[in-house]
Amino acid sequence: MPPLMKPVNTISRCQAIFRTRKIHADDLKASHYPFILTICRLPGLSQDEIAKELFFDKSTVARVLAYLEQTGYVNRIASEKDKRRSLVYPTDKMLQIHPSIRSANGEWNEKLTQGISSADYEIFQKVLLQMEQRAIEIIETSEES
Amino acid sequence: MPPLMKPVNTISRCQAIFRTRKIHADDLKASHYPFILTICRLPGLSQDEIAKELFFDKSTVARVLAYLEQTGYVNRIASEKDKRRSLVYPTDKMLQIHPSIRSANGEWNEKLTQGISSADYEIFQKVLLQMEQRAIEIIETSEES
Repeated sequence: MPPLMKPVNTISRCQAIFRTRKIHADDLKASHYPFILTICRLPGLSQDEIAKELFFDKSTVARVLAYLEQTGYVNRIASEKDKRRSLVYPTDKMLQIHPSIRSANGEWNEKLTQGISSADYEIFQKVLLQMEQRAIEIIETSEES
Repeated sequence: MPPLMKPVNTISRCQAIFRTRKIHADDLKASHYPFILTICRLPGLSQDEIAKELFFDKSTVARVLAYLEQTGYVNRIASEKDKRRSLVYPTDKMLQIHPSIRSANGEWNEKLTQGISSADYEIFQKVLLQMEQRAIEIIETSEES
């Protein structure tokens, strides 16, 4: 079988490098950007919901959110319904950087797909979304063994 | 444009979760497995060569290699040609875990591609490899700005 996950992971890591180069934020690392995109898109999620949305393990999410809180990117506010549950909201500092991340992503996508025929790209997209669905199913049905 | 990088990153992170569940190594994290695969496939690379091969930034590579050395997964040996340059080799401990990582990867690929027609998969592969090539070119030609 020709390589599958190696190119997938290479594309993912090259995007991370590209984004870090485009966005000048000394207190952010490549691994923080997926969090910013999710927190700005879905403000008010709990830590566990963010972990589930992003497919990161809970300890990674806890560590990153603590860092983002400490550096002034997020506020955690106790849920009205359940005071023990804290919900994560973007601060102005995070909202200010969000458009530049979206713009770097747009530029990346445009560069990445240059020269690919729309017929091929359509099939690629279809298979990619099928695989995404499968990947989530595999994780949801495979027990911690 | 339909989502492109979100499914790519989701597939990548789900594989990391799957691998961590399959391989019972308390002293390894998801982020270490790409290093093990590369170090076993290409023993004797320098730290910089590993960074280039994996598309991780140098500080991440330095941190992970220090951890893998400390936990007994790699040896660093001074290069014969240039004594200031140290080359990274797998230890027996790493070589012993390598087959189980390859086997988890094989199982993952098989599950992930289930139900995809071979005609669609062929086009998917072609576009994926084109994009991998583009991603590397973008990184190599985009200056640190």
